[in-house]
Amino acid sequence: MQHSLMNRLAELAAITDTPGALTRLFLSPAHKRAIELITGWMQDAGLETEIDAIGNLVGRSPNAAGKPRLLLGSHIDTVRDAGAYDGNFGVLAAITAVKSMEALPYAIEIIAFGDEEGSRFPQTLSGSRAVTGNFDMNALSSADSTGATMGDALRAFGGDPDSIPKIARNPAEILAYVELHIEQGPVLEAKNLPVGIVTAINGASRLAVTLTGAAGHAGTVPMAMRRDALAAAAEQILFIETYGKSIPNLVATVGSLAIHPGAPNSIPGRATYSIDIRAPEDSARREAVATISARLEEIAATRNIEIAITQTHNAPATTCASWLQDQLADAIAAQNLPVCHLPSGAGHDAMAIAALCPVAMLFTRCKGGISHTPAESITAEDANIAVAVLTRFLRSFKMPETP
Amino acid sequence: MQHSLMNRLAELAAITDTPGALTRLFLSPAHKRAIELITGWMQDAGLETEIDAIGNLVGRSPNAAGKPRLLLGSHIDTVRDAGAYDGNFGVLAAITAVKSMEALPYAIEIIAFGDEEGSRFPQTLSGSRAVTGNFDMNALSSADSTGATMGDALRAFGGDPDSIPKIARNPAEILAYVELHIEQGPVLEAKNLPVGIVTAINGASRLAVTLTGAAGHAGTVPMAMRRDALAAAAEQILFIETYGKSIPNLVATVGSLAIHPGAPNSIPGRATYSIDIRAPEDSARREAVATISARLEEIAATRNIEIAITQTHNAPATTCASWLQDQLADAIAAQNLPVCHLPSGAGHDAMAIAALCPVAMLFTRCKGGISHTPAESITAEDANIAVAVLTRFLRSFKMPETP
Repeated sequence: MQHSLMNRLAELAAITDTPGALTRLFLSPAHKRAIELITGWMQDAGLETEIDAIGNLVGRSPNAAGKPRLLLGSHIDTVRDAGAYDGNFGVLAAITAVKSMEALPYAIEIIAFGDEEGSRFPQTLSGSRAVTGNFDMNALSSADSTGATMGDALRAFGGDPDSIPKIARNPAEILAYVELHIEQGPVLEAKNLPVGIVTAINGASRLAVTLTGAAGHAGTVPMAMRRDALAAAAEQILFIETYGKSIPNLVATVGSLAIHPGAPNSIPGRATYSIDIRAPEDSARREAVATISARLEEIAATRNIEIAITQTHNAPATTCASWLQDQLADAIAAQNLPVCHLPSGAGHDAMAIAALCPVAMLFTRCKGGISHTPAESITAEDANIAVAVLTRFLRSFKMPETP
Repeated sequence: MQHSLMNRLAELAAITDTPGALTRLFLSPAHKRAIELITGWMQDAGLETEIDAIGNLVGRSPNAAGKPRLLLGSHIDTVRDAGAYDGNFGVLAAITAVKSMEALPYAIEIIAFGDEEGSRFPQTLSGSRAVTGNFDMNALSSADSTGATMGDALRAFGGDPDSIPKIARNPAEILAYVELHIEQGPVLEAKNLPVGIVTAINGASRLAVTLTGAAGHAGTVPMAMRRDALAAAAEQILFIETYGKSIPNLVATVGSLAIHPGAPNSIPGRATYSIDIRAPEDSARREAVATISARLEEIAATRNIEIAITQTHNAPATTCASWLQDQLADAIAAQNLPVCHLPSGAGHDAMAIAALCPVAMLFTRCKGGISHTPAESITAEDANIAVAVLTRFLRSFKMPETP
C-alpha cells in the first residue's frame, strides 16, 4: 500500500505549471491536470466525483444522500518551488484509506481544496471557505500577477462563480472534518514519532516595532551619552526570546530587522523590526502581546528611546475537537505507538472548516521539519502508518454522546 | 570669505547618491560629481588638479617640482545619511585659505581623499593609505553590499588599480600634513571655543562578525529547538555595549547589522554585523578586542551557533607632532583666542598619513558635538576663524631646527 501512495505522490508532484520545479497554482493548467489524475484515483476508491463551483475536487461515497457525512481532505495547490507533500499528502492518504474501507454507517467526502496557499491571488483558503459558506465574493475581483481576476480564471477553468454560495454544506449533515498533513516542523522527528495529534492551529499576532534614538559618530559620543536604537532593540529581542521560551507552546520570533544609518562607524539612530507571536490558546497569545509590548515600552523608556508598536496581523487560534483528538489517540495507541499531542504553527484548511463542524488534524513527521521547498521529505513507512491510523479512526468513528 | 565657504559647503552637500539624504560613497556617481565641483574650486585657487589612481582629487601648487611640499586635506566620502561638514569642511577650508595666499617658500598639495569612512567597502582610509604606500592591494578584491569589488568599481570610476603603488609620496619631499576637521564631540562647545589643537587620535579596531544558525518557519519550530542567529547577535550586542560602558574613555559600537532570510515569518538563520572599538590607549583597545571576541565565542557556543570574527581594521593611536601643535598654538594665540588641546575620539586621514610625515589637526567646534547625521552644524564665524588660523599657520610655517 505504501508504495502505491508514495508512487502516486511522486506522480502528482510531477504535475506543475513550471517545468523543473513544483508550482501548481489555483485554477491553473496544472491544477486541472492534477484534478484529472486524482479523479481517477478517487473513482478507483469507489467514490463518485465532481468539480465544484470554486474548483474543489470532491469524492463522495455512493448513495450518500440522507446519510451524515465525515469530511476528509487537504489542498492540491502549492507554493512556488514547493515540495511534494504539503497538502497533496492529506488528499492521497485519505483516498488510500477509503479504498480499503468496508461499508461504514456514515458517508465520506474527500475534498481536494484548490486554494489553501494563496500563491496566485491575494486570498488564502478560498476552497475551504466556499465549503463553509464563508467565501467572500469580492475575492472574485482580485487579480493575479498577470492581471487576471479570480472570477475570470474560475470561469475559464470550468467553475461557476455565481454558484459558489450553493456549495456551502449544511452543518446539520456534517459530522466532522479530519485532515492529514505533514508537520512542517521538527517536533515529531525530535521525538522519533511518525505521527502526532494536533491540539490547535495556533493563532498568530504580528507586531511592527520602530525605535528612534539618536544617530551619532561611533568614535566621539561617550557610551553614557548614547541613545543607541540597535542596543535597545537587542535588549528587547532578548526579552522576546526569553518570554517565548517561558510559555509552553508559544513561539515569538523577530524575523526582520533594519537599522539606520547602518554604517559601521555610526551609532544606530533608528531600528525597525517585526515580531511574530503564535500560540494554541488565544489568551496566552493576547497576554504575550500585552506583556511583550509593556516590557518593550519599559526598555525604551529606560534608554530614552522613542518607541512605536503597531499590530499588523491578528488571527485567532482554531481548537481541534477534544473528542476527535481522543478517537485519533485511540487509533494511534491501537498501532502500539506513543500518543503525541502538538500544536500546529502553520495554517491549514481546517482553520476555515472549523466554522462548519468540529475539526481534527493528524500530523506526519517530515525530514528536518522542512517544508515549502523541494527538500520536503517523508518516508513510505510514516505515510503507511498515517494511513493505518486514519483507517482505524474511520472504522471506530462515532459521534460523542450528547451530554 | 566665510559666506563663500559656507555656500560651497552647502553646494557640495547637495551631491548625494540618495536624494533626500547625504550619502556619498567611495567611487559612486556622487563621488565623481563632487570631484568635478571641487576641481573647479581648486583651479580657482590657483592649483593644478588631477584625480589619482585610487580616486583621490589632488590640487597642487604650480611649479611644485623640486620644492618641499606641505600636505593639506581631508575626505569627501560620507557615512550614510551624513552631515555636510565631516571631511568636506577640511578640504574646502584648505582651498579657501590657499586661494588668498601669497607665494610661499614651499609647495602646497590639497588632497580630497576618496575613502575615509569605509561606508562602501570593508576597509577605511583607502585614499590616504595609497598616498603613503601602505594601501593593501588585496582590498581591491573586497566587495560592497551589491557584490561589486573595489577593483571593478575603481576601474569603472576611471581609476587605475595597477598604478596605486605609484602614487606613494616620497617622504623626503613631504614636510608635514595638516588637517582641519569638525570636532565631532562636545569639548570645544563646552569650553566655548571655536577651535582646538588635537594631541592624538584614538586607536580603533573594527571587527566583522558572522553568525550562522538555522533558518526555519517562525510558526512551527519550538523555541527550545531554534538556532536563531539574530537572538544570538542580540545577546552579543548587549555584551558589547555593557563592556564598552565599563572601560573609561573606551567606546564600542555595533553600527551595521544584516540578517537572512529577513522575513517576518522566518527564523533568522544568519546574521552579520560590525563592531567598532576605540580607545586612547592601545593596550585598553587590544584588551577590549580580546575580551569581546572571547565572550562572543562563548555566547555562540552556548547557542550552538557558528561564529566567524574577522578583524577588518586596526589602527594604533596616532600622536600629533608637538612642533606642529606649537605652530598651530601660535596661530591661534595670534587671533587672540585661548589655546585648547584635546584628543580626537574619531579616526581621520591623518592617522594613515602619519606613516609618511609629521601630522597635525585643528578641530572646529560643531553644534552639540553631533556628527554623522544631517543635524551636523557649524557656524560661519567658526569656519572663518579656522580658515584664519590655517592662513596664519601657513604663512609662518617652518620646519623645526634639527637638534
